[in-house]
Amino acid sequence: MAGNSIGNVFKITTYGESHGPALGVIIDGCPAGLPIELNDIQTELDRRKPGQSRLVTARKEGDVVEIHSGIFEGKTTGTPIHLLIWNQDQKSKDYSHIKDVYRPSHADYTYDAKYGHRDYRGGGRSSARETAARVAAGAIAKAILKLKNIEVLAYVDRVQDIAIPREEDVDFSLIESNDVRCPHPATAAKMEERILAIKKAGDTVGGSIKCVVTNSPVGLGEPVFDKLNADLAKAVTSINACKYFSIGSGYDGTFLTGSQHNDSFVTEGNNIRTATNRSGGIQGGISNGERIEMEVGFKPIATIIAAQQSVNSKGEPSDVVGKGRHDPCVLPRAVPIVEAMVALVMVDHLLRNKLSQI
Amino acid sequence: MAGNSIGNVFKITTYGESHGPALGVIIDGCPAGLPIELNDIQTELDRRKPGQSRLVTARKEGDVVEIHSGIFEGKTTGTPIHLLIWNQDQKSKDYSHIKDVYRPSHADYTYDAKYGHRDYRGGGRSSARETAARVAAGAIAKAILKLKNIEVLAYVDRVQDIAIPREEDVDFSLIESNDVRCPHPATAAKMEERILAIKKAGDTVGGSIKCVVTNSPVGLGEPVFDKLNADLAKAVTSINACKYFSIGSGYDGTFLTGSQHNDSFVTEGNNIRTATNRSGGIQGGISNGERIEMEVGFKPIATIIAAQQSVNSKGEPSDVVGKGRHDPCVLPRAVPIVEAMVALVMVDHLLRNKLSQI
Amino acid sequence: MAGNSIGNVFKITTYGESHGPALGVIIDGCPAGLPIELNDIQTELDRRKPGQSRLVTARKEGDVVEIHSGIFEGKTTGTPIHLLIWNQDQKSKDYSHIKDVYRPSHADYTYDAKYGHRDYRGGGRSSARETAARVAAGAIAKAILKLKNIEVLAYVDRVQDIAIPREEDVDFSLIESNDVRCPHPATAAKMEERILAIKKAGDTVGGSIKCVVTNSPVGLGEPVFDKLNADLAKAVTSINACKYFSIGSGYDGTFLTGSQHNDSFVTEGNNIRTATNRSGGIQGGISNGERIEMEVGFKPIATIIAAQQSVNSKGEPSDVVGKGRHDPCVLPRAVPIVEAMVALVMVDHLLRNKLSQI
Amino acid sequence: MAGNSIGNVFKITTYGESHGPALGVIIDGCPAGLPIELNDIQTELDRRKPGQSRLVTARKEGDVVEIHSGIFEGKTTGTPIHLLIWNQDQKSKDYSHIKDVYRPSHADYTYDAKYGHRDYRGGGRSSARETAARVAAGAIAKAILKLKNIEVLAYVDRVQDIAIPREEDVDFSLIESNDVRCPHPATAAKMEERILAIKKAGDTVGGSIKCVVTNSPVGLGEPVFDKLNADLAKAVTSINACKYFSIGSGYDGTFLTGSQHNDSFVTEGNNIRTATNRSGGIQGGISNGERIEMEVGFKPIATIIAAQQSVNSKGEPSDVVGKGRHDPCVLPRAVPIVEAMVALVMVDHLLRNKLSQI
Repeated sequence: MAGNSIGNVFKITTYGESHGPALGVIIDGCPAGLPIELNDIQTELDRRKPGQSRLVTARKEGDVVEIHSGIFEGKTTGTPIHLLIWNQDQKSKDYSHIKDVYRPSHADYTYDAKYGHRDYRGGGRSSARETAARVAAGAIAKAILKLKNIEVLAYVDRVQDIAIPREEDVDFSLIESNDVRCPHPATAAKMEERILAIKKAGDTVGGSIKCVVTNSPVGLGEPVFDKLNADLAKAVTSINACKYFSIGSGYDGTFLTGSQHNDSFVTEGNNIRTATNRSGGIQGGISNGERIEMEVGFKPIATIIAAQQSVNSKGEPSDVVGKGRHDPCVLPRAVPIVEAMVALVMVDHLLRNKLSQI
Repeated sequence: MAGNSIGNVFKITTYGESHGPALGVIIDGCPAGLPIELNDIQTELDRRKPGQSRLVTARKEGDVVEIHSGIFEGKTTGTPIHLLIWNQDQKSKDYSHIKDVYRPSHADYTYDAKYGHRDYRGGGRSSARETAARVAAGAIAKAILKLKNIEVLAYVDRVQDIAIPREEDVDFSLIESNDVRCPHPATAAKMEERILAIKKAGDTVGGSIKCVVTNSPVGLGEPVFDKLNADLAKAVTSINACKYFSIGSGYDGTFLTGSQHNDSFVTEGNNIRTATNRSGGIQGGISNGERIEMEVGFKPIATIIAAQQSVNSKGEPSDVVGKGRHDPCVLPRAVPIVEAMVALVMVDHLLRNKLSQI
Repeated sequence: MAGNSIGNVFKITTYGESHGPALGVIIDGCPAGLPIELNDIQTELDRRKPGQSRLVTARKEGDVVEIHSGIFEGKTTGTPIHLLIWNQDQKSKDYSHIKDVYRPSHADYTYDAKYGHRDYRGGGRSSARETAARVAAGAIAKAILKLKNIEVLAYVDRVQDIAIPREEDVDFSLIESNDVRCPHPATAAKMEERILAIKKAGDTVGGSIKCVVTNSPVGLGEPVFDKLNADLAKAVTSINACKYFSIGSGYDGTFLTGSQHNDSFVTEGNNIRTATNRSGGIQGGISNGERIEMEVGFKPIATIIAAQQSVNSKGEPSDVVGKGRHDPCVLPRAVPIVEAMVALVMVDHLLRNKLSQI
Repeated sequence: MAGNSIGNVFKITTYGESHGPALGVIIDGCPAGLPIELNDIQTELDRRKPGQSRLVTARKEGDVVEIHSGIFEGKTTGTPIHLLIWNQDQKSKDYSHIKDVYRPSHADYTYDAKYGHRDYRGGGRSSARETAARVAAGAIAKAILKLKNIEVLAYVDRVQDIAIPREEDVDFSLIESNDVRCPHPATAAKMEERILAIKKAGDTVGGSIKCVVTNSPVGLGEPVFDKLNADLAKAVTSINACKYFSIGSGYDGTFLTGSQHNDSFVTEGNNIRTATNRSGGIQGGISNGERIEMEVGFKPIATIIAAQQSVNSKGEPSDVVGKGRHDPCVLPRAVPIVEAMVALVMVDHLLRNKLSQI
């Protein structure tokens, strides 16, 4: 009800403010018998953590995860898994200047209006720091997918107007080869240059991430409201700064005619396949075994260095001035977050699908 | 779990196949004391029903709704409301030709793979006929919004490449002035021409619908996963043929810098407002009182007249041939469906927000 | 949220007032491929319906069920199943005398206080007529259990102080051999006599029902809150007039010492069994494969013929006088209702248990 | 789905094994603005903790609670509250002797059968240690109830056959005046003697707890399945060792006739009251403003000192021998657990009731 849980069978509930003592997540519904190592989780967190490259904020947070329950002698027990990450870089004094002033395009005003009382330090619950808990939970989801040979891969496709050329194939093995997490090296170089320039200017940029799921089984997704694409749309749209979500042929597909857009069925060995994949691996809300393909757009982060006009909680004009450390571009760190959210949805539906037939 | 419900406080559960005896919906969680007339529901259904203009399918379905519970002497009682619509135009014999063949880009194959047994007549549960139940439930949601002076308005913004010019304002009062439901008459005329041409060609086209919510209160939406935009994304993406969802500045916004994109706070009388509305009325997942603005893209409907290559359930090559009646463009009839889904989400969060403060 | 649904995987939502046009239920989450006949459902409804013997109310309601969706060519399709029962014996005029007066120990006052507006005819939503929808849904649950060779059997164990002697075994095949649904003929005869005497006196009596589940698999039930016994407790306590629920050794078991109460594990062939069954088939909230045994107590029904002092909605003294037809004892008709609720819980946990291991 | 959550609006999710590093709870849905001190929570935990008197186990666990989120400057913020308790008295070596043997009437066998892999140390997740998290969450619930002047009070009513005489009134202020938590001193003395004798014998005893809710508002509880009594039944039946639950007149009430059992409505000042309270404060599943009264029975704890015959995981005969420290009677420590579960249900319905009318 209060919105801090997602998933039906594989359900996570997160907690924690940016500058409280800790943040974390309970995963309830993870089946017993899954082999899992602390390092599987830590590795994913390291991909999200600040300070990992000059393209992202210089804030240092170790983001060291602890496992408190649900895993015994290297395997899950079917009981809830609690993962906790201590907040190390609290420096609460830094935030007194925004206690009463509403930063433009942040959640300060809406939280205040909704709750009447909020932890204003670093954005509190609305901080993207909350996504660390999602990534930790996503690592457990990925371990399940790995058992089934399913892979979730996201990468930066576009920074502002700098995009991977559409005609070129993407080599997923290159995603982690650069700090942008763009698998097309020539494009990655341009993106990096742009991000560094915008960082220097104290400004921020957005763009888009593409995400694919390879080797998905047929049959995942539930009619009518919990279509696989609908649950994916919600999961990724819930990530801070997300502006759009598209599936398969997406925006371009809406310009075609039906005869151009339809994916013909063909037989490949013993399998029924589609000759094209404008459906993006999902038909009628249910996976058809083809590659699941989606795109997620992110706006430029609202925290900038330049002074901005705003109002305080009394409605009086009040300036907002940025501080020295900020993320010039959310995209490189958003890659593991998108993967986590997609993995959570895929596992939830993988398990739900066990219930389809008697 | 099985995906036929949506909403938390204001929760609907739909049932019914395209060619079964009836379809319907239970609305559980509608507060007591809401004045509602049968006609409020019927009016919305009439906007969705087939056969209402030459732009849509000629199938005749009266879509007459019955109220079976939850409303007594003109007002809701707080108990579940059951709305039922009998299927009138069943003609089951029409569908024997698709019993075993998988229509391209329909859900025939995925339902078969998932369930092993399906009602193949007219797409069964995967038919867009199911959305009648959503529209019926949405009419109840709209009645609640109306009490609070909140309005949900959708309209066709683009058919293929024919779009309302961005620089021009939209006059919502013109939405119902033409069969396309496009409030810009000059554009509507071109759209109508395009749709009739494509209908004649036996083909289909897609495009996009814009939807706004006017007069939304501040504070609707729940962190973290049930952000208002995330729940809207899921609700509209669950509509058949939806390919993308965007909020506020959407796709274009991801090309801007933070300094260009941020919405400054200003004071207007006693209210805190934003000078611009790139956030689309939602910040940190919570409504900020500005107009909520979203765009939804639909692919061309998969049912076309031309013969298409496909396979049957045994994987053998098998042709699919369309029949005489089809919807050349989903958009005009999708307008009330988008409104219904958005209204359902808004009411759910309106009620949930009663719980935010002690 | 509004309380008209139960179950997690196998979830039912009911609607309908006593004197509205219809009542019914949607079952969402029934797996595809289950053979089901209309008659399987009608048979259970016939066991619950009024007028079936002189021990119960003389009201005549055919309770003819219709299937509207989710079942195609004799098997479930995995989509929601809607079952509807028309109300035939409405006679709304009968109830004008209780429009504004609160009948003692009925829900008239609490519904009025909670909702401010209610359908007062025949108790509206609070009428036990609502349980017809539960029984209809329970019939589907029983069909699943039957496939797995699991049986749910309830019977009347006690009417007031007339109880089956504890030292005597019960022959389940005799449950339906008399109108009381008590499998011990000598006791049944005494119960029948008591019920007829109390009917003549215009009064009512309560008692208890015992329910067993035979052949339950090991492993059903979820820690911590959704223990099998906890979900059973809720399900049966939600039946009108229920006053207590006990499991296994129940009340008597709380007088024993641990050394007297513990059930020793033994081996029987390849199976681990318990030598005794004071646990009632459930240990740590999870079924252990032994017979699940519970007892449910029902108070005397509140509707009596004698005049009673009460107040009206303004708080003014106002007499309540009973009409000619009433149920002198809820127990015989409650037997199929208890079975239905227990079957619903068992199936829900049977399906949930598919998710326990990777 | 996996059963570690309870509540709809005010929802808690617990985690933790008896001998893992920590256990805890996330409370999601606590409204913002509630004043809460760490000490409010610690005080309740101290009532549950082991080692507090000679009547309970001598195990020493500090049960010191930490707050990690959701409370800022002494008030709740509306975001999830995480409470954590470190396990201090792990001594894992103590439990190697039960690694492969199934203790009679414990959950060792059923967990093993269900999950295939379990943390056997101290019962793992099935240990009553898990209830510490419930009590911590219950303390937050109690703080809300206190604001509304609602009080939840439980006490030991019976140990085996030693019970408070029914004809005597109970003075709630005496509950904490003795180690048994029985508000009737003369009975408490006898209970204490019995418990010490059974402790000396290495055995255990059960009995019953009564719980009342004073000053409940009218209107709490939802038809049909989430009746207040049904949710209470589930909540308390989910406590380890619970064997029965009754409401109002309970067991005795089922021996009366309707004319004896009905509670007449009367007017008291401006309020509608009932002259008697056999309904136990709940009619039609909804609170009527009278005192809510229930009784909960607990079996003797399964852990005893005497050797017991059992089997190991291979089904081979294997003896179980108890160790030196055990709880001879669960009741004194179960009092705050029952109160916690009842408080959680009351708050959940208090909040849900905000949604009943438009």
